Amino acid sequence: MYLLSMIVLLTDFQSSDALGVVKGVMKSVSPKAEFVDLCNNIAPFKIRSGAWILLYDYKYFPTGTVFYCVVDPSVGTERKSIAVKTTHYYFVGPDNGLMFPAATADQIERVTELDTSTASKTFHGRDVFAPAAARLDKGDEITQLGKAIPFMQQLSITSNSREGEIVFIEHFGNMITNIKPLKGKDSYELSCRQVRKQVKCYDTFGNAPENELFVVKGSRDTLEIALRESSAAAILKAKVGDVVTLR
Amino acid sequence: MYLLSMIVLLTDFQSSDALGVVKGVMKSVSPKAEFVDLCNNIAPFKIRSGAWILLYDYKYFPTGTVFYCVVDPSVGTERKSIAVKTTHYYFVGPDNGLMFPAATADQIERVTELDTSTASKTFHGRDVFAPAAARLDKGDEITQLGKAIPFMQQLSITSNSREGEIVFIEHFGNMITNIKPLKGKDSYELSCRQVRKQVKCYDTFGNAPENELFVVKGSRDTLEIALRESSAAAILKAKVGDVVTLR
Amino acid sequence: MYLLSMIVLLTDFQSSDALGVVKGVMKSVSPKAEFVDLCNNIAPFKIRSGAWILLYDYKYFPTGTVFYCVVDPSVGTERKSIAVKTTHYYFVGPDNGLMFPAATADQIERVTELDTSTASKTFHGRDVFAPAAARLDKGDEITQLGKAIPFMQQLSITSNSREGEIVFIEHFGNMITNIKPLKGKDSYELSCRQVRKQVKCYDTFGNAPENELFVVKGSRDTLEIALRESSAAAILKAKVGDVVTLR
Repeated sequence: MYLLSMIVLLTDFQSSDALGVVKGVMKSVSPKAEFVDLCNNIAPFKIRSGAWILLYDYKYFPTGTVFYCVVDPSVGTERKSIAVKTTHYYFVGPDNGLMFPAATADQIERVTELDTSTASKTFHGRDVFAPAAARLDKGDEITQLGKAIPFMQQLSITSNSREGEIVFIEHFGNMITNIKPLKGKDSYELSCRQVRKQVKCYDTFGNAPENELFVVKGSRDTLEIALRESSAAAILKAKVGDVVTLR
Repeated sequence: MYLLSMIVLLTDFQSSDALGVVKGVMKSVSPKAEFVDLCNNIAPFKIRSGAWILLYDYKYFPTGTVFYCVVDPSVGTERKSIAVKTTHYYFVGPDNGLMFPAATADQIERVTELDTSTASKTFHGRDVFAPAAARLDKGDEITQLGKAIPFMQQLSITSNSREGEIVFIEHFGNMITNIKPLKGKDSYELSCRQVRKQVKCYDTFGNAPENELFVVKGSRDTLEIALRESSAAAILKAKVGDVVTLR
Repeated sequence: MYLLSMIVLLTDFQSSDALGVVKGVMKSVSPKAEFVDLCNNIAPFKIRSGAWILLYDYKYFPTGTVFYCVVDPSVGTERKSIAVKTTHYYFVGPDNGLMFPAATADQIERVTELDTSTASKTFHGRDVFAPAAARLDKGDEITQLGKAIPFMQQLSITSNSREGEIVFIEHFGNMITNIKPLKGKDSYELSCRQVRKQVKCYDTFGNAPENELFVVKGSRDTLEIALRESSAAAILKAKVGDVVTLR
């Protein structure tokens, strides 16, 4: 049991009241719980995007943090509901790959299947995952939450080639890819949707010229496609999940 | 007096700094206050939508929660400012019907009129409701906040027929109605705006086909109109408050 | 050292995961930190808009609050990173004028330059400002954070004439100006972009007619341009920073 009491939320709930309701449920189970919203703007149903955000961000949180992760297009179908204990953290959510890259990176110690027999069919986020996350937060052992299962659904989100995908689009319209920068290279051939274009690579947003697509080495050590003071995603008509190459 | 210290916010402030300012004011009055945002994305000035969200969500919060509720198109006019004590909760906001369905459902014990004589005319949310909510949060009795009044403004938001209204539109574009599902019925005739259409009813979002309007029994036991991985509201050009029938 | 533990965030991070990550970093340094989001929807890179919001809102927060302020178009360039102690508060962020009006209003006691030598070039918000804000929050003295410097970058955002600028656009589309109302005047000649128009001035939003541009004396004692139940900014095609006159 950890002394910390912190639940971090990663969902595609956007601005709906669902986010407030699940916090109400968690506060009812664990009155001392504190919440930090990691990102509730994962593109709807985009499991891979959520997985990528979680993989890169989980390590910035204190040991003992419980991650409540719900991007769940298949709620109410056969997919399992799980809680995972790793070396430093807990992860609670649907077993659809969303939590796999982060949990694996921090080393999985136990995967527990959660009981869904009394839950609504449309909102496991409220009826299954919120109570489970809150019980872990207040100090219950993961062994009290259900039976261990040997596997969780796998998903791979990192890229080791020049072809990758758009893993997140920021509000500004910057498109984050999972493609790594090449050392010393100061321009790339970008291919995304109908667009094929040579783009320069800058160190920082501040140094880039206006009105020109460029790439920058982002804070996660992958290339980001940006347009200064405008939206690269709107210009390229690109969406999360689109294939992109940067050679 | 409750031991809990939690203020839950329901507003149409959207992303403005107003939300931060009222929390600053509340923290100044009640330093131990904790906040949960229930929903600050009520469609601007749509009292009925706020009332519906509050009616369905209030019960997920712990006993003693203070609900700060501000959807207030008539700020600065004749409408009263009130604090309400119910069996398990407090509600603070304008007396325009917003809090009536939830307060009634939890049984009203006392309605207190708040003094607005020293407040700005444009922002009672900051000058009247925030201090009042914070005083209840830190343990003041509702009797200390002002004189009891016998009535509050009524509003009815549930529907008992096949005609209802769109009470909320989620970020995904799912339109929540206040119309109840019919047992065993697996398709409905939907009428909304210019559209009249037979739509199938599914148990969960995950089972519905793509590119086809459908209805689903939502987590609040009313019918929701949806389009998988797309926006039903955009297709129907529908807004919160629109009349809808599902026969 | 203050007893309070509260970090208030003012950024242009919008809905990105950056906001959650910096809170994770701060919680790791100062486990008891509490957060209030003042406004994370400052228009991208609009330093003047952020400065204006901060100037008007800082005073609503309790003594000892640490303001984490990041609108930082020049991250990674020559601009300094600073922490500022004023009579009642701390401010932490880039030295680009953003914090100057508020810090000056509360009277500057000390400006400290923060070390950026080990930080990423693209995200000082995470690597420099978050740890510094958290150290102040947990009780470190500002003298422990770095060497004092004699000046900070100046910026003036208030207007004392009939010409000013749009300093913020609310989600509803109301445009907040920095132009003060004239006593007893009940209509103004508005000039903004291509539009020149006589507009009436109302006390409250509730009293204004629909479908008609009007001005209202806002909660910050400046004039706001609004359209009841619709977006004034969309009609005028106006942006934050646009010049506006109200005579």
